[in-house]
Amino acid sequence: MPRLIPLLASLGLSLLTANAAAAESPRQVIIDQDAFGPATSNLQAVLMAIQAPDVKVLGITVESGDGWCRENTQHTLRMLELIGRTDIPVAAGPDLPLLNTPQATKLWEARYGKLAYKGAWTEAWPKNSVVPRSPPHAADVVPPMAEGAPKLKARPEAAADFLVQTVRAHPHQVSIVALGPLTNLALAVKLDPELPSLVKELVIMGGSFSPQPPPGGSPFASEYANTPRLEFNFRFDPEAASIVLHQHWPQLTLVPVDPTTTTYLGQSTLDTIGKAGTPVARYLQRYGQAGYPLWDEMAMGLWLDPALIRQQRTLSVDVDTDHGAGYGNTLSWNPGLNPGLGETSAKVVFKVDDAALLQQFTQLMQAPTPRR
Amino acid sequence: MPRLIPLLASLGLSLLTANAAAAESPRQVIIDQDAFGPATSNLQAVLMAIQAPDVKVLGITVESGDGWCRENTQHTLRMLELIGRTDIPVAAGPDLPLLNTPQATKLWEARYGKLAYKGAWTEAWPKNSVVPRSPPHAADVVPPMAEGAPKLKARPEAAADFLVQTVRAHPHQVSIVALGPLTNLALAVKLDPELPSLVKELVIMGGSFSPQPPPGGSPFASEYANTPRLEFNFRFDPEAASIVLHQHWPQLTLVPVDPTTTTYLGQSTLDTIGKAGTPVARYLQRYGQAGYPLWDEMAMGLWLDPALIRQQRTLSVDVDTDHGAGYGNTLSWNPGLNPGLGETSAKVVFKVDDAALLQQFTQLMQAPTPRR
Repeated sequence: MPRLIPLLASLGLSLLTANAAAAESPRQVIIDQDAFGPATSNLQAVLMAIQAPDVKVLGITVESGDGWCRENTQHTLRMLELIGRTDIPVAAGPDLPLLNTPQATKLWEARYGKLAYKGAWTEAWPKNSVVPRSPPHAADVVPPMAEGAPKLKARPEAAADFLVQTVRAHPHQVSIVALGPLTNLALAVKLDPELPSLVKELVIMGGSFSPQPPPGGSPFASEYANTPRLEFNFRFDPEAASIVLHQHWPQLTLVPVDPTTTTYLGQSTLDTIGKAGTPVARYLQRYGQAGYPLWDEMAMGLWLDPALIRQQRTLSVDVDTDHGAGYGNTLSWNPGLNPGLGETSAKVVFKVDDAALLQQFTQLMQAPTPRR
Repeated sequence: MPRLIPLLASLGLSLLTANAAAAESPRQVIIDQDAFGPATSNLQAVLMAIQAPDVKVLGITVESGDGWCRENTQHTLRMLELIGRTDIPVAAGPDLPLLNTPQATKLWEARYGKLAYKGAWTEAWPKNSVVPRSPPHAADVVPPMAEGAPKLKARPEAAADFLVQTVRAHPHQVSIVALGPLTNLALAVKLDPELPSLVKELVIMGGSFSPQPPPGGSPFASEYANTPRLEFNFRFDPEAASIVLHQHWPQLTLVPVDPTTTTYLGQSTLDTIGKAGTPVARYLQRYGQAGYPLWDEMAMGLWLDPALIRQQRTLSVDVDTDHGAGYGNTLSWNPGLNPGLGETSAKVVFKVDDAALLQQFTQLMQAPTPRR
């Protein structure tokens, strides 16, 4: 930096100006997610980044998780069409996680009990489900889409290749916000083991430590009473999560389900947003799915504004890849008690300013969509 | 095909001629391997394909296994320089398997006993080792090479990407002969789940069923007396092996260690080869490592000439990915007894015409190297 100062001075710039310019340049992000329908928590989080005026979304990578990768990709592409941001590239991953399968999961359930939620692998939706979903189907089926099918196509390259190429094109500049199972990111770090060192930071929505139900209870928190360490994203592809949590990321923030149990997106918020009348507002009012916690929105909201974090701890984190009762469970240790087998250290978020998060979300969704 | 006949006739070709031409066109192969030094079993198998007049080697992909990937890649590149075939592309994979690590392996050994061989992760070579090896070292170290360091560079893309691109460029035409841990191939099928259906056939050197020591014993067979299902390639990256064995390959031949225990490459064979005086013969005479079974040479020899197979059985095959005593062990079932969780069916080779294999090897190594 000292060598830069004379150059900057000769250009009539002060160091302060140069730093300010750097801070003002758009933050660059790749979002990795598993949207199963229009305007789900996943896509609402994606929209937060797209709507943020100081953020450039370099691309969206998609995996199987809440829905199958192929349907998730279609919903993502259609969302981009409807809001007029077809310039954002989308790249898809494989149908299946690294090793886990629907069949293996059924056998596990026969031995250890039913999982509360299996995403794309759920055999039947409960009748009292908050949000109607397409009936369960095969990986290569894309059920009719309420919002219409997209003409826009995904990139030809695999999501993992897209991640590598995009980070390599902007070394140390790109944040990755990962909102689904970590299949794509695990493949990317194995394709290019230098990738983590070239990323600016990684934010993961995943893991479960000891979530407490909110006052009055919540259908989304009750499952953790018996399985406090079992969270869907990590459980869907435990091996991928463990691979990602064995890399050295310059900065890693983990947003587990713990701080999300007190959040809630109600219809009144969607109605408020709808009044803005923009394409994004109309998309949310029409397809937005009220009745969920702000899972992925929280991870994105904290990447956008870390000041919303109220409580966090630095912990060593891994995922159980043994195939017994604990398969996919979050493992964590206070610093110094971890086994030291390469597992990483993460800033784990436990409490967030819920009201400020909802306000941030609402304001972003009401704002005009930045041009490409 | 019927629509082709008038076209062929108009060109003065009979269908017979066209078919014969197709059969005569070179067989195309990608070799995936883990050579730890010059003219090891791995590179000798690679040379067999290069030397075969009716074969085109489309590329060589390299992984960690017997040695670290980086040193393996350097030995491979140098071999290509010394024999004048720098046109053959080489692409490298990651330093580490998908999940397995040297540290995890040491902990496993503390609980379940020492592994007879750990390739790149071996802490110290036995004093009575058949072949001198460089002392164990870190993944990013390439010890001084007896044959000299190469100027030739590996391709910039990852081995898995190279596999996908090369198979996609020649759909249904490419055989893959995989001689080491299956890290690269597992990544490739997860990057492009259609890859297996686009490959012509896959031959794997790996797995162990119930190897018997040859009359008089063999230092390379004794380890199987206590661990008949434990073989190095599968054990080094069990998750990768299991991923590969859960794909639907048009044709899959598995060459386990079982038929290799009766084979042996002696110094007299290398001396015989050396008399040919070609660059390949000189390379083998100078750096060839006598005293080993023909492990990888057998897999390549059977791909080149399946008539050498004396006994084979079709079995369902998988690899144990539980982290207990059996981690990495070969699992197999007679048809119909397999669990049906997606594990594949393979033609497993149990006996080979050893004399004919050695003759095939010798003749190929004495032949002139086909031009690029």
